Amino acid sequence: MSQYDALKETAYEANMQLPKLGLVLFTFGNVSVADRSKNVFAIKPSGVPYEDLSPEKMVILDFDMTILEGSLRPSSDTKTHAVLYKNWPSVNSIVHTHSTYATAWAQSQLDIPILGTTHADHTTTDIPCAPPMSDEMIQHDYETETGHQIIQCFKDRQLDPKETEMMLVGNHAPFTWGSTAHKAVYNAAVLEEVAKMAYLSLQINPAAPRLKETLIKKHYERKHGDGAYYGQ
Amino acid sequence: MSQYDALKETAYEANMQLPKLGLVLFTFGNVSVADRSKNVFAIKPSGVPYEDLSPEKMVILDFDMTILEGSLRPSSDTKTHAVLYKNWPSVNSIVHTHSTYATAWAQSQLDIPILGTTHADHTTTDIPCAPPMSDEMIQHDYETETGHQIIQCFKDRQLDPKETEMMLVGNHAPFTWGSTAHKAVYNAAVLEEVAKMAYLSLQINPAAPRLKETLIKKHYERKHGDGAYYGQ
Amino acid sequence: MSQYDALKETAYEANMQLPKLGLVLFTFGNVSVADRSKNVFAIKPSGVPYEDLSPEKMVILDFDMTILEGSLRPSSDTKTHAVLYKNWPSVNSIVHTHSTYATAWAQSQLDIPILGTTHADHTTTDIPCAPPMSDEMIQHDYETETGHQIIQCFKDRQLDPKETEMMLVGNHAPFTWGSTAHKAVYNAAVLEEVAKMAYLSLQINPAAPRLKETLIKKHYERKHGDGAYYGQ
Amino acid sequence: MSQYDALKETAYEANMQLPKLGLVLFTFGNVSVADRSKNVFAIKPSGVPYEDLSPEKMVILDFDMTILEGSLRPSSDTKTHAVLYKNWPSVNSIVHTHSTYATAWAQSQLDIPILGTTHADHTTTDIPCAPPMSDEMIQHDYETETGHQIIQCFKDRQLDPKETEMMLVGNHAPFTWGSTAHKAVYNAAVLEEVAKMAYLSLQINPAAPRLKETLIKKHYERKHGDGAYYGQ
Repeated sequence: MSQYDALKETAYEANMQLPKLGLVLFTFGNVSVADRSKNVFAIKPSGVPYEDLSPEKMVILDFDMTILEGSLRPSSDTKTHAVLYKNWPSVNSIVHTHSTYATAWAQSQLDIPILGTTHADHTTTDIPCAPPMSDEMIQHDYETETGHQIIQCFKDRQLDPKETEMMLVGNHAPFTWGSTAHKAVYNAAVLEEVAKMAYLSLQINPAAPRLKETLIKKHYERKHGDGAYYGQ
Repeated sequence: MSQYDALKETAYEANMQLPKLGLVLFTFGNVSVADRSKNVFAIKPSGVPYEDLSPEKMVILDFDMTILEGSLRPSSDTKTHAVLYKNWPSVNSIVHTHSTYATAWAQSQLDIPILGTTHADHTTTDIPCAPPMSDEMIQHDYETETGHQIIQCFKDRQLDPKETEMMLVGNHAPFTWGSTAHKAVYNAAVLEEVAKMAYLSLQINPAAPRLKETLIKKHYERKHGDGAYYGQ
Repeated sequence: MSQYDALKETAYEANMQLPKLGLVLFTFGNVSVADRSKNVFAIKPSGVPYEDLSPEKMVILDFDMTILEGSLRPSSDTKTHAVLYKNWPSVNSIVHTHSTYATAWAQSQLDIPILGTTHADHTTTDIPCAPPMSDEMIQHDYETETGHQIIQCFKDRQLDPKETEMMLVGNHAPFTWGSTAHKAVYNAAVLEEVAKMAYLSLQINPAAPRLKETLIKKHYERKHGDGAYYGQ
Repeated sequence: MSQYDALKETAYEANMQLPKLGLVLFTFGNVSVADRSKNVFAIKPSGVPYEDLSPEKMVILDFDMTILEGSLRPSSDTKTHAVLYKNWPSVNSIVHTHSTYATAWAQSQLDIPILGTTHADHTTTDIPCAPPMSDEMIQHDYETETGHQIIQCFKDRQLDPKETEMMLVGNHAPFTWGSTAHKAVYNAAVLEEVAKMAYLSLQINPAAPRLKETLIKKHYERKHGDGAYYGQ
């Protein structure tokens, strides 16, 4: 028994959603979940196949990367998660995958333009693609700098991580997050679908226009505004 | 026991076909079914995951949006369904999805051209894509106006909803319908497949010609004409 | 008990392979199997969902379209099958599907070029796409004329149906065949895969060259030549 | 009981992964596994469906193509495997598939450019596509020459088969390998995913840039360098 058992269970369940949703091949992804009351987070161990995972294999760390519990090495992307938790207090769970269509957009180094209401139901902005890092950042402390790159991208574009819960690291792959593990994983699947739809739309019509502002606001407010009337 | 139990059961079964046919991610879709003898329809509750649905969770409304039975909020698209039932008396079931390829065509704001007999087996026309709504319509009563937009699109093009049982709302996603719940759901799956085939055909040959009129008529009449000889 | 029970069973099993191999949506396909010793063939009934099929529902006809056994109406494409059996004595089974990628090529009205050894393992030629029929042929006896169109296409190109066991009817969809039901269904799946690979290859490199003749011959002879050394 | 039972079991298990990972249609692929202490390898029999395979059906050969055990004819690609084992002593398992996206790149006769970290996590180079063979090589001893073609391609480009464990034979299809059967099969699935991502990236942005050298090195070293910190 540990004080982190519930957190580990949540992180385990969230990680197991990734293969079920078709978002990962082998071990190409990880979910972490924070407990803000304890200033800790649980994350998938590195390189362990999903079929071999169990709640007790989750690794518990604080936001300064001190391992508090767990005998396995945490995900190689753990520093990126820690930076985001430290800088974005509203975020309670983070998902990183190499899902196919979102990663293709990241490799193309283009933002995913907002072309329809499927996108607008989830965010009012294009999904940002952070530019590749400088050589200095890569050679310094790569995974920590990936976190800084994400935060800098949101600052540069004046985006709020509470409003836009998904982005692409250029050349690399997507990160999504949310106030709960369920929401962060949900966002990872939504991003993959939105990425596929935007790809197809622009193949069908390279001149497909950006969604008009009134529709962006309307759809987002149906789900997220003060008078939201989507869901129960 | 309620007088609407059979209607709820039908609506429940039809909704459960959407994930089975791969037409929805999470809750991105809904089916309604009307009982014309009672002037009511049953529709999926808003934002409830398919795995949590049951017949008794279906919501019963009349065509003026009065809720007659059900403790959950109906789908956020319910007003669109109500407008269509009110204006198109031949329609007994309506399906709305964000299925991937049909939505991509909607986002591209192009009609799906009739390129082959798979399409002609189901309708003799291009599948229409209604233009984006005016800002006034969006800000007024969005879901009601979506219904008007669909009806106006069919009027402008002189299409008959008994002949063409599928369409795209520009920027948004597809709607299909039919004389039965089975037919409306069937049409949603056919539309997705026709949308994928048209996309691929135009990628392979951007000059792929529209199907010739004699073939359009022949294939449609095999299934739908007076001397129809498809099926039992 | 009927003298056709074994034939019906074979036809039933072959039809059931189509949904299993992902080659049909709903009832968009059919398989027939001939018994040359009796000059008859068994074919799927029209419009019956695969999950409702059973061996006794298969319809037995001779090559002049006389129904010999079966209470259901045969597939609406039955006349096309009959013409092919009558004209091509080497063919013992025929498959018609609307599989996605092969149908997209048919809609694009282009032959599938031979771009690699996956294709050459099965046929030495481009997969022919027959041109659309004349209006006279369509209005006369459509399904019979579809059979004539296929045979004329092979005559015009001097193709041998024993060597090339797959083709596309322009605007429509693929037909495949073989000396056994197993081979005809196998060819339907191979055609779909070859169609997808050719599509992708030309998207990646529109100048992808046709396979060189020596490789075409080598791969085909590995499987089909006098000194064939593929298989047991 | 045979001294090769463990080897056959390993080869059987590895072959059965191919359909499970969606890398083969019918019998379009094969895995071999070498036992370097005995100078032998086990390989799939030719043309046997995966569902009919069993460990005892594996064929045991030495690197000069002498069959030591097994009553079935070995895969028609066996000579290619033998040449690679003979020339590349670090390789203990080889996989050949016709997986869809990797084969499309092979048919397009282009290297798969390194566009992102998913690729760089596995190799630091573009994935080479060997040019088509000369007519003399094809007519001589085709499968042996395919092995020489692979080895020559790596020599010409100064690639090390310990570093780059995957390649494309132009016009044909991919080969992957590794120090274990698990790794060789893993590489076959990774190659297919990387091939799909590169295809999509270049469709989205034909000017998508090659990954910068510092990122290539960083990602590869996370998994493979002296200070590797990926995995346990």
